Amino acid sequence: MSASERYLTLNSRDLRLELEELYAAYTACLDEERFEEWPEFFVEQCLYKIVPRENFERGLPLATWLCESKGYLADRVTAIRKTAVYAPRYMRRMVSGIRVLGWKERVLEVRANYVALETLQDELTRVFNTGQYRDKLVVVFDSLLVPNSLIYPL
Amino acid sequence: MSASERYLTLNSRDLRLELEELYAAYTACLDEERFEEWPEFFVEQCLYKIVPRENFERGLPLATWLCESKGYLADRVTAIRKTAVYAPRYMRRMVSGIRVLGWKERVLEVRANYVALETLQDELTRVFNTGQYRDKLVVVFDSLLVPNSLIYPL
Amino acid sequence: MSASERYLTLNSRDLRLELEELYAAYTACLDEERFEEWPEFFVEQCLYKIVPRENFERGLPLATWLCESKGYLADRVTAIRKTAVYAPRYMRRMVSGIRVLGWKERVLEVRANYVALETLQDELTRVFNTGQYRDKLVVVFDSLLVPNSLIYPL
Repeated sequence: MSASERYLTLNSRDLRLELEELYAAYTACLDEERFEEWPEFFVEQCLYKIVPRENFERGLPLATWLCESKGYLADRVTAIRKTAVYAPRYMRRMVSGIRVLGWKERVLEVRANYVALETLQDELTRVFNTGQYRDKLVVVFDSLLVPNSLIYPL
Repeated sequence: MSASERYLTLNSRDLRLELEELYAAYTACLDEERFEEWPEFFVEQCLYKIVPRENFERGLPLATWLCESKGYLADRVTAIRKTAVYAPRYMRRMVSGIRVLGWKERVLEVRANYVALETLQDELTRVFNTGQYRDKLVVVFDSLLVPNSLIYPL
Repeated sequence: MSASERYLTLNSRDLRLELEELYAAYTACLDEERFEEWPEFFVEQCLYKIVPRENFERGLPLATWLCESKGYLADRVTAIRKTAVYAPRYMRRMVSGIRVLGWKERVLEVRANYVALETLQDELTRVFNTGQYRDKLVVVFDSLLVPNSLIYPL
């Protein structure tokens, strides 16, 4: 079965449900700090950027995070594990408003809103950050969706 | 095909997915400040109200916003564009808990929770407002759903 | 039709949609303070616990709430109605990231993130609490899902 045939048979309802599952798995991985599993959501030649909205809207290229391959993502995880020194905290991510913008060959363009909530020890939970996932997902033949790039933040 | 036939064939699973898409499109329109497109989510004879929960629960008619036609919504957008003077900020809306309460002819009664998050320049993101969408949606024959009224806030 | 046959015929897409509806109904019941209806989401021999994440991760058994039967839940509701003295406030719950971990006989293991937002009179809305629903749901033959236990908070 070719990619184009798959494209024709994957209807929008099934797709929306697969995306819900993908984002649920993705955020659970991060919420639970299973960082070593996180690069597995990406293809080898991926692009991961966190860009402040103001920079993004002005077309400024400055990114808070920039990883241009899966190996780079793994390096960042190693760095977090080895060097990060910060107060213990819990993060929890909520996702809403998943939208499929369109397809181009095997790549699916998707948007979704997220909010990350942070809880420091003995403090009240607060909003850490909110933003939009701007994802290009590579559709793999066995029907799994793998995020190829996460441009604008988290 | 008549409206009632459509009602009979539109099953609850497809409906829930269409509602997810509708709210994703609606909130994206507002988050991205595409205000000129916003009235297009409404029918001509619509009713759009933002009512504080306390007023709503006491049956008080006082509304923060009240627009009784699509033309009125467009006027509000013009007013926002021409006169609004406020510090630059970004808003992001999350929606959860979509519930279909029932049908009456071609009108679908729906509830959903929302939270709007606000980010002012050089400040941390904070909760702007939370509330419930109390919508009456007109089901159009081509299967699009158009919100007819948004009563209780945002 | 036996439980195992039902398990075989209930596909993951229908299941996800049923879970979305269940959590929407559950949170609406609490948001609207219909507390008397709340125990109806549980089976007789249920377990309802609210556990701080820190305790949970350390394996400490201390729970903020612990109810070991549906009758106990009803008692708690009576206590809330009769004795609770606190400033008037509104709560609103958002749910995201529903994940089905697996089945064991008629019991479905599910995770979901929630955030509860609190609005006190004449104050801005704030994050009250965030956490994870860790639910064991009993699948009833008529296809309704009933939460059997809510372990980690709210």
